[in-house]
Amino acid sequence: MIESEMIVPTPDAVAGAVGRLAGVVNRTPVVTSRTLNAQCGRQVFLKCENFQRVGAFKFRGAYNAISQLTPQQRVRGVVTHSSGNHAQGVALAAKLWGVPAFIVMPDDAPAVKRAATTGYGATIISCPAAEREERSAALVREQGYTLIHPYDNEHVIAGQGTAAWELFEEVGELDLLFVPVGGGGLISGTALAAAARCSGCRVVGVEPEIAADANRSFRSGVIETLPTVPDTIADGLRTRFIGQRNLAVMRQYVADMTTVSEAAIRETLYFVWQRLKLVIEPSAAVALAPILLGTYQGAGERVGVILSGGNVEVDGLF
Amino acid sequence: MIESEMIVPTPDAVAGAVGRLAGVVNRTPVVTSRTLNAQCGRQVFLKCENFQRVGAFKFRGAYNAISQLTPQQRVRGVVTHSSGNHAQGVALAAKLWGVPAFIVMPDDAPAVKRAATTGYGATIISCPAAEREERSAALVREQGYTLIHPYDNEHVIAGQGTAAWELFEEVGELDLLFVPVGGGGLISGTALAAAARCSGCRVVGVEPEIAADANRSFRSGVIETLPTVPDTIADGLRTRFIGQRNLAVMRQYVADMTTVSEAAIRETLYFVWQRLKLVIEPSAAVALAPILLGTYQGAGERVGVILSGGNVEVDGLF
Repeated sequence: MIESEMIVPTPDAVAGAVGRLAGVVNRTPVVTSRTLNAQCGRQVFLKCENFQRVGAFKFRGAYNAISQLTPQQRVRGVVTHSSGNHAQGVALAAKLWGVPAFIVMPDDAPAVKRAATTGYGATIISCPAAEREERSAALVREQGYTLIHPYDNEHVIAGQGTAAWELFEEVGELDLLFVPVGGGGLISGTALAAAARCSGCRVVGVEPEIAADANRSFRSGVIETLPTVPDTIADGLRTRFIGQRNLAVMRQYVADMTTVSEAAIRETLYFVWQRLKLVIEPSAAVALAPILLGTYQGAGERVGVILSGGNVEVDGLF
Repeated sequence: MIESEMIVPTPDAVAGAVGRLAGVVNRTPVVTSRTLNAQCGRQVFLKCENFQRVGAFKFRGAYNAISQLTPQQRVRGVVTHSSGNHAQGVALAAKLWGVPAFIVMPDDAPAVKRAATTGYGATIISCPAAEREERSAALVREQGYTLIHPYDNEHVIAGQGTAAWELFEEVGELDLLFVPVGGGGLISGTALAAAARCSGCRVVGVEPEIAADANRSFRSGVIETLPTVPDTIADGLRTRFIGQRNLAVMRQYVADMTTVSEAAIRETLYFVWQRLKLVIEPSAAVALAPILLGTYQGAGERVGVILSGGNVEVDGLF
């Protein structure tokens, strides 16, 4: 797993990940709803990764990557720069393998995210927000840690694809599958899974309108970068650019990309909590919004949606 | 279905209801969680009636009752006095059978509850809160409507028992099953289901400490009445007394009763939303609290909990 070599994963890689993750990941439920189908005018299948370990799909990719470390890499440890779901995914996967994990977080990361990460036994390394990537790279050079990149990593991509693999296994053919896009890990893994299992299924990525760099990159063929971190409610999708491996997979296997407004994200979030009784995070609502609110045309009859996670602070409600 | 005759349902009645409800009710999922099991120190099985039609188990009993009306009773219509989940259960079941439904609600019932009820095509009859039962009784006498009592009705009781029936069918034997208690419909149906399918399972009812009339009635053998409507956060359990049929079943088939504090209900509610990603209502948290917080001793190794519903307004969160 040498990061400087650019290995773009193939559909086969997802099958390998499925085997590695068996019995370790939660096989999350697929939820359907009369109310939802009536509202959308089609059959909708929600793959509920909010019920995944650590509360999001990110555990899949992290575990697939860490399970393939060499014995020497395991002894030295892993590092990543993330204060969100990927940090917790790496921390838990590393704990299960007995691998030391170092998570580079900004000085001002919320206490609740620090606690969640240290709760899995990982060590937090604090630094100014702008220096996170540089600090991670330094730890790789100086300490010999292996970087587990949040999305631009072939094993992470293949692991994320196992959610869609399970979905196809459970419900069969789909006409279309909506996926939220941040750095591009989930959508590239999902597109590979579709290529392997359900080649007639169109995989469509969804971004917040105000964070639409992946839409632009998908169309232009080069990585487009947002000037600043976008202020979307979908906190899991506040990435400024996607990865090289992600773009390569997306250009080959993704059918289309679309965007949704902040108002649409909020409306969808409310619908899922209030009517479907599922706690999901705003990033997950992004993927459902185009079909719930009818802003995407030509979705077909059988539509899947990856509800990516459910990590949101509910303290304010009680 | 003449309300003045007191017919106490038997375990057989639940089997009959299972047949009537097949293909109509949602076969709700049973959720398990590593986190929950670790916290409780045992295996816990959550029967998720928050995913039931109308968002609560109440649809089961209402449908079982309405499906057994005579053709003449169907033409005349049904009435009930409830502004909560039972009202919606009756409204939907009546709609599915083409039966006119009249729901007596207090003048000050929240607009959202009125809208949910009229959304299923029921007619709301407003009156002062204190006159609701009297007004329902008058409609039965004068209009010939059939009263679908929220809990003191043998068909309603048998219908509510189908949730536990499905649970036993899916997970097999349980040592104990916790059920929230308001008027006693769910616990009496559940106890009958256990008697029919899993006679070694102890059915235990749980009430808020400040609404513990059923605990007292269970022990004394007579119906004890609270002087005022209890001000518990568990709005589905704000009943002042249980029913005659419910008490009769409970005395014969329920193993034990316990109570939980308001703080315990809130803590459990938070845990279920934040960690399990399930939107449940406070009444559902009541049933999980004794095992999550360890206030009930001797629960055994395999424990079931009926999460009774998920109807709570989430608007404040966004």
